[in-house]
Order: sequence, then C-alpha cells, then structure tokens
Amino acid sequence: MGRLTRRRRATRIVDGSASTRVETLAVEEPLEIRLGEAPFTLTMRSPGHDVELAHGLLRAEGVIASADDVAVARFCTETDLNVLEVHLRPGVTAPPVSATRSLAAYGGCGLCGSSTVATVADRPRPQAPPPARSRLDPEVVTRAAEQLRRDQRVFASTGGVHGAAAADVDGTLLVVREDIGRHNAVDKVLGHLLMQAAPPPPLLLVSSRASFEIVAKAAMSGVAVLACVSAPSSLAVEAAEELGVTLLAFVREDRLTVYSHPERIVGPGG
Amino acid sequence: MGRLTRRRRATRIVDGSASTRVETLAVEEPLEIRLGEAPFTLTMRSPGHDVELAHGLLRAEGVIASADDVAVARFCTETDLNVLEVHLRPGVTAPPVSATRSLAAYGGCGLCGSSTVATVADRPRPQAPPPARSRLDPEVVTRAAEQLRRDQRVFASTGGVHGAAAADVDGTLLVVREDIGRHNAVDKVLGHLLMQAAPPPPLLLVSSRASFEIVAKAAMSGVAVLACVSAPSSLAVEAAEELGVTLLAFVREDRLTVYSHPERIVGPGG
Repeated sequence: MGRLTRRRRATRIVDGSASTRVETLAVEEPLEIRLGEAPFTLTMRSPGHDVELAHGLLRAEGVIASADDVAVARFCTETDLNVLEVHLRPGVTAPPVSATRSLAAYGGCGLCGSSTVATVADRPRPQAPPPARSRLDPEVVTRAAEQLRRDQRVFASTGGVHGAAAADVDGTLLVVREDIGRHNAVDKVLGHLLMQAAPPPPLLLVSSRASFEIVAKAAMSGVAVLACVSAPSSLAVEAAEELGVTLLAFVREDRLTVYSHPERIVGPGG
Repeated sequence: MGRLTRRRRATRIVDGSASTRVETLAVEEPLEIRLGEAPFTLTMRSPGHDVELAHGLLRAEGVIASADDVAVARFCTETDLNVLEVHLRPGVTAPPVSATRSLAAYGGCGLCGSSTVATVADRPRPQAPPPARSRLDPEVVTRAAEQLRRDQRVFASTGGVHGAAAADVDGTLLVVREDIGRHNAVDKVLGHLLMQAAPPPPLLLVSSRASFEIVAKAAMSGVAVLACVSAPSSLAVEAAEELGVTLLAFVREDRLTVYSHPERIVGPGG
C-alpha cells in the first residue's frame, strides 16, 4: 500500500500526556481528467485505478455508455502533473465546455431538486435498474457490508478513506475500491465493471452517507439496490424513488432501513 | 428546522423484522453561485446561510479579501432555481472563467501535491496564521469539540450533516454551522466571520476528516489551529505544515493528535 499511505511523525496527547509516534496517513493527490485536450474535471483522490475512475465518472455524467466509447485513456507524458487524457471514439461527442456545471445545465430545481433528478433520469442510461425479479435478503446486505468493512485495508490503517463495493445476489463482493473521496470510490467500482463489460451489479455498497450524486451514479450504471452505511439526504431518497433505485441506509450489523422501492427486499417487499 | 430537515416514511428492518416509521432526513439542495452573470460554482448544500457560504467560498478561492469586496449578494429573482448572484466591488477582479479549475491553474503537482500547496500559499491572504503567542490547552480543544457535538441539532435528528465552529482561546464557540457538505459548513463559518469583519478565530473545529481543501480554507482565513474529529490526509498535513496552520485530528473526549506546528499547543509545544 506504499502509494496509498504515507508515514509521518505526530504527537498524540492523551489526558494531557504527550507522546510522539509514527502515524499512517491516507495519501491525497489531485488528478485532472481531460477529454482530448480540454480539462473535464479535477478531483482530489487516492492514487491508483485512475483509468477506472475516469470510466466511472464519464459514464455517470452520461458522456460514455460503454468502454468501447473510449478510444484511449492514458497519462499525459508532457507534464509531471497527474493528468489523464481520455480520447473518445469517433462519433461520441464530448459535452460542451462550460465555465462550470451550471445549475440550469445540471437541471437543478431550487426548491426540491426535482429537475435535478429529472435531468439525471434523462441522461442516456445503458441499463435501467431491473425489475424486482430476485429479492435480496436483508441479511445478505448486512453480511456484504461487514465483508466490505473487513476488506477496507487502507481505512483500517488510516481511518481516512471511504470504501465501495459491487456485490452479487448472494452478497459475494465482485470488486472493492477505497478512496479518500466517496464519489471516487463509487466511480472506481462502476468504472471497473464497465471496463469488464460486466452486467450491472445487483447490489452496490458504500461506506458513507447517501447523497444525490451517489444515487445518480448508481442509477446511471443500472444498479438495482444501493446500500449505504450512514444517513441518506432528502434528495438522495427523492432521486432513488424517481430513478427506480432501491435505497438502503444505516446498514449496520443486524439492521438497515429501506427508503425507496422496497419491492426488491425480502420482508417489506413481501 | 423546517427547511433543514424533511420527514419521510421508511421501513426499518431489525433482525429480519420490518416496521414502518417516519424518519427525519437532512435536506440536500443545489445552489449555483454566480459572479455577476457568470456561473462560478455549483454546490449541493443544506439550505440557509447562503450569503455566508458565498463569502466564505470566495475568500477561500482568493477572489475577495474582505466583505467590502462584495458590492451585492442577492438571490436571482428571474429563475425558480437557487441562484445567488454576487457582484464584486469595482476594482476587484473575478478570476478568468475556465472550463474547470484545471490542474495547472490549481497548481497541482502530481507526485506530492507540493505545487498545489504552493499555489494556495500564493493566494492573497488577508491574514497569515499568527505566531504562537497564546498556546491552546488540549483540554480546551476537546471541550470545544464536545460543545460542537452538542450544538449539532440537525445531525442529532438526521445523522446526515457535518458541523463546523469557530472558537475563542478559552474554547467558547463563536459561531456554529451545519451542512451536508463539510466544505460548506466551513465556508459558512468563515464567511460569517468575514461578514462581521471579525478577526481570524484562534480555533476552527470541524466534525469530519481533514482534507487539503479544509486546510486551505483555514489558512486563507488566518486560522491558527484547525481541529478535526476524524483522520487527516497526507496532503492536509503537508499543506498545514507549509501554510503555518496547527493541524489537530482524531479529536476525541480525552485525546487528540498534533500533526503540524505543535508550538501553539500546551504539552508538545512546551
């Protein structure tokens, strides 16, 4: 984990007594993603899996629908900076460059965010979340979340990163990624699956709270059930409801709460 | 707290038993901030204190140095969206509009982030963090953090928001703000102080982890000691060291860890 953590001396004070020790920190570094020559975004992220990150992000933003839409993704060699250049396949159009993702472009409704949700719903989605054919047992979800916790090696040593994982219907983890940014962790997981041309995972686990953006990313990748360890926001629940995603939050050892589309869960789903 | 929380039915499943109950959610809404007519940024935030948020953000980005630099900040009435228009005082120049805060403009160094830090160090800083005249007792910090926890009313009801507070040398909280985004909570606190023309607070408390951005915001406002409840990133520690900020993290009931500039803390500081 040499690139992901860094050791540094620090002074711990407990009940007024100071002692110096070596602490392990999660590495945070900037990454710029370009579409061709044009800057697309700048993110502070944990190093590694950057091509997956770019794939996941571009799919979430509706720029690409499959890995085939990316002709080349490579680190820029003309600079010492972390710059990843993505060249799209001919025929795939990059979004217009604007000063920012403006609220109008983003489709935000000031009062309730409903147009924000509508805009995401309107993005080209390769896979819509599937109907409730196979219902998940809550115990499968809590067990998978426990497995994610055990697999979070960087978190265990630093306490400073989030984890995300895609899981199968029986709770088997398909891919686990950690990142100082929860959005990045999700992008890396979904980008990995996209690059494998894998079908949408039945379950996406995230170690953090559930925000609108996390729900939007899940929906864009056709995730049926999104399970978050901490609290959801109002807009996360509204978006999940509208976009057809089953949102679970406060996923703990023996419990979870279902906020939308309970028909995919054994118990409330019947 | 009507605007800050929203009630919604959800199904809680404990040990396989489902029960429906009304849950309280933290409200999440988009806000666009414009400089004049041009979009500056879009943030997902908790409603309220938006003018403070804009002041804090613009100071952190080096656009304004005092509240006098803002001629007018008002909600746009020509749209139903949450759009806050900020007009700068004549003579204060808005930053050039670019497609994104590109890595080069941001000054990121791919390997260690050192130029990122240098760029922040080069931003016009109204106040540099003061020298270690008055050292803080660790107990003052842990007590103030405990007070912040008690004051976090939205967190208590939703579990879904972060808190930030400015505190005096004796640990008295001067202003407390909560937001679904930790950056926003910090911007609202520092923006409030800027609008009051208050001096830089000796202590800034944040309920989250310490990232590069949080340290940069603290430094830009002349904060001497930044205390975070959770883990710091590598770049947060490097930035704090270079920018002259004392960074405390893992601030708990009876303990904390000092990562940079210990000379402002009783104990390691002598």
